[in-house]
Amino acid sequence: MITSAANAKVKQIIQWRNKSKERRKDDVFLAEGPKMYEEAPTDWIKEVYLSCSLEEKLRSGELPRPLSQKLEKSGYEVVTDELFVKMSDTQSPQGILTVVRQPHYTLEQLLQNTDPLFLVLENLQDPGNLGTILRTGEGAGVTGVIMDGKTVDIFNPKTIRATMGSVYRVPFVYVTDLFKTVKELREQGVHTYAAHLKSNTYYDCFSFRESTAFLIGNEGNGLTEEIAGSAENYLKIPMEGQVESLNAAIAAALLLYEAHRQRR
Amino acid sequence: MITSAANAKVKQIIQWRNKSKERRKDDVFLAEGPKMYEEAPTDWIKEVYLSCSLEEKLRSGELPRPLSQKLEKSGYEVVTDELFVKMSDTQSPQGILTVVRQPHYTLEQLLQNTDPLFLVLENLQDPGNLGTILRTGEGAGVTGVIMDGKTVDIFNPKTIRATMGSVYRVPFVYVTDLFKTVKELREQGVHTYAAHLKSNTYYDCFSFRESTAFLIGNEGNGLTEEIAGSAENYLKIPMEGQVESLNAAIAAALLLYEAHRQRR
Repeated sequence: MITSAANAKVKQIIQWRNKSKERRKDDVFLAEGPKMYEEAPTDWIKEVYLSCSLEEKLRSGELPRPLSQKLEKSGYEVVTDELFVKMSDTQSPQGILTVVRQPHYTLEQLLQNTDPLFLVLENLQDPGNLGTILRTGEGAGVTGVIMDGKTVDIFNPKTIRATMGSVYRVPFVYVTDLFKTVKELREQGVHTYAAHLKSNTYYDCFSFRESTAFLIGNEGNGLTEEIAGSAENYLKIPMEGQVESLNAAIAAALLLYEAHRQRR
Repeated sequence: MITSAANAKVKQIIQWRNKSKERRKDDVFLAEGPKMYEEAPTDWIKEVYLSCSLEEKLRSGELPRPLSQKLEKSGYEVVTDELFVKMSDTQSPQGILTVVRQPHYTLEQLLQNTDPLFLVLENLQDPGNLGTILRTGEGAGVTGVIMDGKTVDIFNPKTIRATMGSVYRVPFVYVTDLFKTVKELREQGVHTYAAHLKSNTYYDCFSFRESTAFLIGNEGNGLTEEIAGSAENYLKIPMEGQVESLNAAIAAALLLYEAHRQRR
């Protein structure tokens, strides 16, 4: 059992939790809680840490079978409860923390789907929002999420938690030049739609049955003119009252589920 | 200018920020930032506080006309920047904090709309989520939000901020017995729909053109069986992949915007 905060592994975990650079350097991310452990693809799991209390439950047979069986196979290290709290990103940690290798996808892989349904995100800043977008995206059948370099790190612990496991299943890429990428999508026959206040056409007036990409911008400012202008079409989500914009995750959900409705 | 943290008004503000009981006792809530001040109905505004820096901008004519004119009319008190940070709920406060009287609505008032569109929330716990629901609700034309006593306080500063002003415009009530309220809605001819995993009918297979109420449950556990069972219909939002549920605000958005689509 690890008992000291000076332990090299513990220090490393805290680095991975706090710094996207450290995560990138070592090609890993942290996933907390039993659900995130259970849903992690076996060959993505690099290290597993249990709190002393959870290990006691494991030994006394109080954990669900699939969880205890997976733990036997993957192996784990035990840390004191106090130390576990220090390693955790949550206020009431659930006693299991998984170090997972980062998945890597390419735009080419994402484009191999028939009639892909993409979400293109520019400068999203809220980690929880990004996680919710991935979770909702999986629910609506998104085939890939494309993000620019200014968008928050998808491996941020808050994002990972909000994905509720979708990070294991939804392919995504960060691109360095979003303008060029949108152009490339268009050249590949993907119809691109920018959510934009200027548009006069409601989102449910388009057909999204063929290859589709929705462009969603920053929470406060929306899409930049450059990226919005790179899209084939502008679309609008109607808004009653004095509402000037919707939350980015809400806008993404409405567009993706409209595509899902049409594709069902 | 108020310069001391021991000032009674400053202490009171901090109480109002932190405690729903204090807000309820004095029938007020706090709204931060220029947008929340500008959109506040004039007769709801009780007190206004400016940071020293923002007052300087006001004096030198750097603020937008409508804002400076409203400030002249409503009056304000100035506090040091340091003190303002202590009073504020945000990490980078925008220098204006408004004390607003709480609005009060009754279920009877909410029922006076022709073909109302209600959201009924059971045990919602995330303040930001609730605020997003109000904002999205206004956008989709919701005519009222009904909440049970276990739902987080709508006047929580995080909720207020997330409403982006919709708290001034969307009527809402807290009810003590949600089961009884759903029954009353049904007796008044409102069609009630519980978002429930057990349902086999997709949400877009119903008509929401007449009086409609959507029931949404707690973030982690959904609706209780009691409340779900009180609804006239169960509906389901389809989910691809391994997604087991959607975020409550996302589910509310999809249902309300489907109603909006049908009612356009």
